[in-house]
Amino acid sequence: MGGDNGPAAVIAGMALSAAKNPDIEFILHGPEEELTRLLDKRPELKGRCRLRHATGVVSMDDKPGQVMRHGEGTSMWSAIESVRNREATVAVSCGNTGALMALSVIRLRKLPGVNRPAIACLWPSRNEVGFNVMLDVGADIKAEAPDLLQYALMGTSYARNGLGIARPRVGLLNVGTEDHKGRAELKAAHDLVAAATETGDFDYVGFVEGGDLPSARVDVIVTDGFTGNVALKTGEGTAKLVGDFLKEAFNAGMLSRFAALLALGSLKRLQRRIDPRRVNGGVFLGLNGTVVKSHGSADATGISAAIKLAFTLAKSGYQERLAARVASATQAGQDAAQNNNENGTST
Amino acid sequence: MGGDNGPAAVIAGMALSAAKNPDIEFILHGPEEELTRLLDKRPELKGRCRLRHATGVVSMDDKPGQVMRHGEGTSMWSAIESVRNREATVAVSCGNTGALMALSVIRLRKLPGVNRPAIACLWPSRNEVGFNVMLDVGADIKAEAPDLLQYALMGTSYARNGLGIARPRVGLLNVGTEDHKGRAELKAAHDLVAAATETGDFDYVGFVEGGDLPSARVDVIVTDGFTGNVALKTGEGTAKLVGDFLKEAFNAGMLSRFAALLALGSLKRLQRRIDPRRVNGGVFLGLNGTVVKSHGSADATGISAAIKLAFTLAKSGYQERLAARVASATQAGQDAAQNNNENGTST
Repeated sequence: MGGDNGPAAVIAGMALSAAKNPDIEFILHGPEEELTRLLDKRPELKGRCRLRHATGVVSMDDKPGQVMRHGEGTSMWSAIESVRNREATVAVSCGNTGALMALSVIRLRKLPGVNRPAIACLWPSRNEVGFNVMLDVGADIKAEAPDLLQYALMGTSYARNGLGIARPRVGLLNVGTEDHKGRAELKAAHDLVAAATETGDFDYVGFVEGGDLPSARVDVIVTDGFTGNVALKTGEGTAKLVGDFLKEAFNAGMLSRFAALLALGSLKRLQRRIDPRRVNGGVFLGLNGTVVKSHGSADATGISAAIKLAFTLAKSGYQERLAARVASATQAGQDAAQNNNENGTST
Repeated sequence: MGGDNGPAAVIAGMALSAAKNPDIEFILHGPEEELTRLLDKRPELKGRCRLRHATGVVSMDDKPGQVMRHGEGTSMWSAIESVRNREATVAVSCGNTGALMALSVIRLRKLPGVNRPAIACLWPSRNEVGFNVMLDVGADIKAEAPDLLQYALMGTSYARNGLGIARPRVGLLNVGTEDHKGRAELKAAHDLVAAATETGDFDYVGFVEGGDLPSARVDVIVTDGFTGNVALKTGEGTAKLVGDFLKEAFNAGMLSRFAALLALGSLKRLQRRIDPRRVNGGVFLGLNGTVVKSHGSADATGISAAIKLAFTLAKSGYQERLAARVASATQAGQDAAQNNNENGTST
């Protein structure tokens, strides 16, 4: 119920996903009457969608603290609850990010060994798989060195199971690549992450900069939620600006318009590559259950992309593997910090 | 001497600027023999360029602290010195940013009332003038609330004198636009900046997000040097990625290549609009003297853009106005914080 475009956009996205994927089923949370009316128009969803009646709605302006105390009975609460009681494998929401994270933390609880859960996003890159993972992009405005180590472990699990990268390469986002650069917690995290590569089964490339976000030399970019959120929105805003400039350029005269017509196929491919809707879906990591946050402004295409991501993660059994890895690697990481020649196990 | 492309690129950039601008003169700092040989090939610079012999070079790997202690005799030190003794109106360097800032601070000294100097960059935007100002993009990895207020004052002075915007609109970079979002120092800065609009002669639009960096609703974006540096490099990296994708798209087949040929004029205009070399030049604000930092990797076009920016600022008498405004507004801002119905004067 919580997206900018209301439940009609959500149901349109579900219909797109249902048409493409015969293995998917839905539980839809919200006011029964309104949703039934919308579902009746979508024959693709017939027999594949159950309803959970919930009258309350979490709005974009609601503060997370309020929602935690008074959120019972909202569609958001109900959706998280269906993951909690194992009815749903994964929850997808377009609603208020802060409230969704707060509810997810109190209802699903943090994984053993995790202090700060994180939101991971996919970033278009020059890598073979076409994407890098960046986290945290907004779960928490602060992260200490041990949190950044956990982000590295959670991010590599995501890259392995969501993107199929066997041994992901991790970079720590900083204002320079030299060892002496950056804040104190980054220098401490630098050492912690470097010591955890064997246990965590990843490679560490060291500090990376903003320009490396689409780079082919890294798969997982680790940062605090304040910096990650600014970087994510800056990247999206820049891509949109360049896209708008491109449209203007091709509308600048008859010749340009004719050229655009000729290059239509190529331009559409380009648009697809930089379309933020295609990489829609921030994944909440570090909880007992998977939650995917879609953009509030997502349309049917964007919501369908978020559902696809949720389905891929659910199918990979990633949640169970992540839990096992974080538990073992956090322990092993602590041991390794004390005793540098210990061998960890790989999950 | 300090850029990635050596003094040949610097002198090529100077030659470009000299050809375009009859009012410009240069003082060039570095090893006399090497520079004389390069200058002899540039008739455009004849009689318009004096040499200051300096044998030492600050490398990209030198740590700022080292350079502060042992930097005398380097070309960088000599260039700063020429601003200090008023021989030069403004210094331009492609060298090590940290070292350049450290030398600038100890030799030029901070303006009265300024705690942390800042580096301001221009950002392509949908504004009428085509650019927004963002600061700090890397002078200091930390900024407290009073520093952010000073950045607002310094940034609006820059926008007024460098871009000709009479009453700049200031935004504070945050992870959301709601008042309760972000770190404690941002909430404090929110109140400080809002209280300084009359004295500082600017408008305050409140919190802005990464996506607003190219926005038409703001002229000056204020943030700490860590976040600003990551945002700047993320934006540059994203623009480059999209540009590369665009090139690939137009190389994807005969028809696309033909279309690219037809649209060549439009595509070149687009490239100019997003070319990071055009907005090359971070301006050091808050010192007794103006220093412009060019990208280390700048070529002749980039260096010429940095020289043009330096010339515009020198010509505007901006340094003197900035000093007056920061002194009066910092004082008035402190008064206003104590007594909210005081009227400040406008410099």
